Amino acid sequence: MTFVPNRSTLSLVNVISAVKRMVVGRRLSNTQMGETLLPKRLALPVFASDALSSVAYAPDEILITLSLAGMAGFLFSWEIGLAVAVVVAVVVASYRQTVHAYPSGGGDYEVARENLGSNAGLTVASALMVDYVLTVAVSVSAGVINAKAMAPFLAGYEAWTAVGVIVFLTLVNLRGTRDSGAAFAIPTYVFMVSMLSMLAIGLFRIFAMGQNLQSETADLIVVRPDGAQEIAGWALVAILARAFSSGCAALTGVEAISNGVPSFKPPKSRNAATVLAMLGALAITMLVGIILLANLTKVHLIDELTGTHYVDQDGNTIHSAATTVTGQLARVVFMDWFEPGFYIMVTATMLILFLAANTAFNGFPSLASILAKDGYLPRQLHTRGDRLAYSNGIVMLSLGAIVLVLAFNASVTALIQLYVVGVFISFTLGQMGMVRHWSTKLGTENDPMERRRIVRSRLINFVGAVLTGVVLVVVLVSKFTHGAYLAVVLMALIFVVMLAISKHYSAVERELALTPDSDRALPSRVRGVILVQRVNLPTSKAIAFARATRPTTLTAVTVAVDDDEVDQVLDEWEAEDFGIPLKVIASPYREITGPFIRYVSQLRTENPRDVVSVYIPEYVVGHWWEQLLHNQTALLIRTRLHFMQSVMVTSVPYQLRSSGRRKDQTKRVSEARVRR
Amino acid sequence: MTFVPNRSTLSLVNVISAVKRMVVGRRLSNTQMGETLLPKRLALPVFASDALSSVAYAPDEILITLSLAGMAGFLFSWEIGLAVAVVVAVVVASYRQTVHAYPSGGGDYEVARENLGSNAGLTVASALMVDYVLTVAVSVSAGVINAKAMAPFLAGYEAWTAVGVIVFLTLVNLRGTRDSGAAFAIPTYVFMVSMLSMLAIGLFRIFAMGQNLQSETADLIVVRPDGAQEIAGWALVAILARAFSSGCAALTGVEAISNGVPSFKPPKSRNAATVLAMLGALAITMLVGIILLANLTKVHLIDELTGTHYVDQDGNTIHSAATTVTGQLARVVFMDWFEPGFYIMVTATMLILFLAANTAFNGFPSLASILAKDGYLPRQLHTRGDRLAYSNGIVMLSLGAIVLVLAFNASVTALIQLYVVGVFISFTLGQMGMVRHWSTKLGTENDPMERRRIVRSRLINFVGAVLTGVVLVVVLVSKFTHGAYLAVVLMALIFVVMLAISKHYSAVERELALTPDSDRALPSRVRGVILVQRVNLPTSKAIAFARATRPTTLTAVTVAVDDDEVDQVLDEWEAEDFGIPLKVIASPYREITGPFIRYVSQLRTENPRDVVSVYIPEYVVGHWWEQLLHNQTALLIRTRLHFMQSVMVTSVPYQLRSSGRRKDQTKRVSEARVRR
Repeated sequence: MTFVPNRSTLSLVNVISAVKRMVVGRRLSNTQMGETLLPKRLALPVFASDALSSVAYAPDEILITLSLAGMAGFLFSWEIGLAVAVVVAVVVASYRQTVHAYPSGGGDYEVARENLGSNAGLTVASALMVDYVLTVAVSVSAGVINAKAMAPFLAGYEAWTAVGVIVFLTLVNLRGTRDSGAAFAIPTYVFMVSMLSMLAIGLFRIFAMGQNLQSETADLIVVRPDGAQEIAGWALVAILARAFSSGCAALTGVEAISNGVPSFKPPKSRNAATVLAMLGALAITMLVGIILLANLTKVHLIDELTGTHYVDQDGNTIHSAATTVTGQLARVVFMDWFEPGFYIMVTATMLILFLAANTAFNGFPSLASILAKDGYLPRQLHTRGDRLAYSNGIVMLSLGAIVLVLAFNASVTALIQLYVVGVFISFTLGQMGMVRHWSTKLGTENDPMERRRIVRSRLINFVGAVLTGVVLVVVLVSKFTHGAYLAVVLMALIFVVMLAISKHYSAVERELALTPDSDRALPSRVRGVILVQRVNLPTSKAIAFARATRPTTLTAVTVAVDDDEVDQVLDEWEAEDFGIPLKVIASPYREITGPFIRYVSQLRTENPRDVVSVYIPEYVVGHWWEQLLHNQTALLIRTRLHFMQSVMVTSVPYQLRSSGRRKDQTKRVSEARVRR
Repeated sequence: MTFVPNRSTLSLVNVISAVKRMVVGRRLSNTQMGETLLPKRLALPVFASDALSSVAYAPDEILITLSLAGMAGFLFSWEIGLAVAVVVAVVVASYRQTVHAYPSGGGDYEVARENLGSNAGLTVASALMVDYVLTVAVSVSAGVINAKAMAPFLAGYEAWTAVGVIVFLTLVNLRGTRDSGAAFAIPTYVFMVSMLSMLAIGLFRIFAMGQNLQSETADLIVVRPDGAQEIAGWALVAILARAFSSGCAALTGVEAISNGVPSFKPPKSRNAATVLAMLGALAITMLVGIILLANLTKVHLIDELTGTHYVDQDGNTIHSAATTVTGQLARVVFMDWFEPGFYIMVTATMLILFLAANTAFNGFPSLASILAKDGYLPRQLHTRGDRLAYSNGIVMLSLGAIVLVLAFNASVTALIQLYVVGVFISFTLGQMGMVRHWSTKLGTENDPMERRRIVRSRLINFVGAVLTGVVLVVVLVSKFTHGAYLAVVLMALIFVVMLAISKHYSAVERELALTPDSDRALPSRVRGVILVQRVNLPTSKAIAFARATRPTTLTAVTVAVDDDEVDQVLDEWEAEDFGIPLKVIASPYREITGPFIRYVSQLRTENPRDVVSVYIPEYVVGHWWEQLLHNQTALLIRTRLHFMQSVMVTSVPYQLRSSGRRKDQTKRVSEARVRR
């Protein structure tokens, strides 16, 4: 069966656009774009939820990875937590330079492309695209794990719950940035307040009140899969490196602010830098606080996937993982004292993780739009029109994340092996670009005050570049075989595809450019040909329209597939007296397309300086299934004619009654648009 | 992402047609159709393999169903075999009348439609369509069971083996009838010879040589699921009725000959009648012979699905089914005496069953073509052109059979419950139609000799109608809840869809008919509009072609999505000096389609008596993925414009170099066609 596109596609387009209007809400015009600018108090939750939320799983992943070293591993959580905190501080300081230098929001992509060349830019773009998808997959999966702390019945349905959440987020995001900002502010703030309160109260109870708070896993002993409780040497170093790499997931999302500068209220760069600093302080406080409290309350986690397990005090082996660090801390801090605190903390953690995924829903389509403008992605992703382009980006992101969640069964520990690589590629190239940027600027700047500022910025970015470069190497080496290779392969694929698209567009542009030598000759005559299958209203309309265009010659052509039908057509043709000749073409193979194409081809050969204009009557029906019953031949002929030079194809549509309702709808919609 | 049809569809069409050419072979022209006519010696295997092959599973299904009555059931196999043989004889006699009266091959559909009205015809058509699909599913499944007798490793993979066979048959059939006939003759004849030899030798060894041949299941006792060995009363009657119904599967395929009369060599009707008689004699001999020999050698089968089982002489319970009746007979007749005989018999049985499925591959597309001509199925199924239409039918049949095989796990016993209903609906209505046909003819016939012949024919068809009607009731009652209801539901569905299609075509034809009142006014002026997105060669070509058609007014229109781009377009436009004005339309929503459509709509409103001709430059590229990168906007605009009255849409294709290779290919193909 041939797929039928024209009218049926439209029905589909109509249905989709009606549904979208309901789900997505009114469109925003260019002049309304200002309305979506975010004040700091909204920008923080929208752009920082990703980075903040990662403290909800980064400590978990540090402890889970350390469990591979047995009980001795947990002793290193402190050092690793601090190391990650240092990286956060340096990266935040570096990005504060970027948002001032590049207020246009291209982020690392723009920085790398302008200062290091298009291939560096494209590398960053590929890395970011993969990481946006992973952000959604990881954050939503982590959110579902937290949800399980309250709703144990989700166990076994994690992946499908995560898919449900992603679908929900997709719908929310198709409504646009602004609405999201407002809706997302409250839970993010609730998370911040409850997290900081939990840490403060916990530390207060331990240090000021001298209480002996012990987590639910404090008495469980962690045993390696091989039964040993400890390991040492290079094996331990490898585990520590991986734990650090996983902990660096806490940094994902920092770059979201540098991409999102244009969405800030003016002064954009200053506000963005302020939000960045707030974010850095918050992330470090929370990360260090959580690890400190987890250490004090002896939180022990195991890695279900690689087979570490608990042994309880009676010597029983337990293979099922405990709840999250945040969940365990909230329980030990709040449960015996202020029970709602536990539920507020866990709910807020779950929600901020879902909101973190939302950061990617903001970042991904923006990036795709910029890449499309630069010719690396299909052009239609650039135009914001009707939010359709952005919607395409959102849907692509959503599908990618759903595939990952299903493939890795919503396991954060499995997904995190793919994560972080992209972020640190982007960090490193971005900071390297900034160093180059400042050096260039230094070449033209003479004001000594300004020069000092530039040198200082360059130093900060240089430290950032070196540190993130080192982390990138650590991440790649420690995680490559554990899954990072998959992320690298995906990035390479995206890189190659985008390069190919870019080359294609350039080649086409060169091929199509008008030069002084281009052929601008007007065809001398127009030879009109009307395809006749039946003598009816559409044919009559096509003839009337074709005659109105007054071609040099006009011939009606019918293909003799069935003798009876041809006789009927000839009789009716004579009865109607259209005033133009009807030519009957033999069709030995009982098909219409081939003989007709050959006729047109011959006409062209006989009149090389003329243009042939083929008029095809088409039935416009209202439903896709009606479309299946009509126009199949017209579609095939039109497609084949497109490959012939000096032939233009004119569709003369005849609207059947069944198309009427839809026509009115279109009218109403366009009127409504004009009125707004 | 929007689906892109025009050029990409062509690429697909090209690929498919290239692959098809390889797989399917050269096309046949109308004048070559004569070549595909079949002499009797080829017509017998092609059209009779279905009916003949069913003797390979009908006795099995009789015995399996009888096993539900325990050991006592098998005592009735004789009577049931004879009852089925009588039905075969009557049906063959009836159809010999049909092939003489209707040499055009419409078969029961044509007979019922002409004599009993279109609804009766449509009922027959629905029934036959379902039964064709079931023929493929049942025959191939039975073939695989036989294959298992030689290749036990197939156990557990029956369904997928069957799917593989169906796919193979599909490919073979896409090559056309003739090749099939030649390839299929040999195995059918091998089957006939070996089956008749096996029966003759077996009976000779038993009766003439007095040998005590005992099948491998002779000593196994069959026990009902409830443990009882026998039942009686109405329960027994119900089982006997179902066994008879299953046995009537031996009749499927008889109607294939009456549908296939046009494929016979002249004298078509006489030859078809002869083949029918041969077929009847062969089928009855084989059916009765197999049941006789199975009785003598004490073949016992069980119904795995409903839980009857064997108990061996040591009292052990055996739940796994034995091999087929043919397999058991071949083993007992040949194994101790002429071992190759066993393998030849089983292989030939397997092959003829696969060939039987092939009958449906001949019948289904022919029927679909006839139905399409009568307006019950999409028109494009009628034209034989390039075998495409027939191919569609073949692929549909194949997909349906694959679904059934997978759904019922290639179990003949399960599938046979759906079977036979359709055949007997078709038989009954066909014979009723024949009775009416003869009665009508009797009203105009005066020659007493001829009248006597007609009366005789009418009597035969009357007996046929009554008998098949009775069998239909027995089949429906005894099998309805066991699966026949599903077949009935499917037929009802197909009936309703075909009726809806027919109503749609009639309504469209009425709506589109030219009447004396029809508006034949010529539009007074043509307003040309060219959609400009860039100033390049395709745009230049579109302008040249549009100017060549000399519209009353001609305006170029560009939509301002991006300010920079609009400035560039305006600059280049001025530099080129095309001689026509360029109008820039504002697009507050950064989309192209909406504003352009509104512009055209306004133009139409301002000039109600004129026709608007919209020229759209289109890029013709060679690969589907290139298509994804171009023309998206053009497609959307063209589709929306189709819904506006008095607007014609002219595509001005510009062939990029990448389309060139394909163009040459098309040329070469058409040249090749002309040369043939």
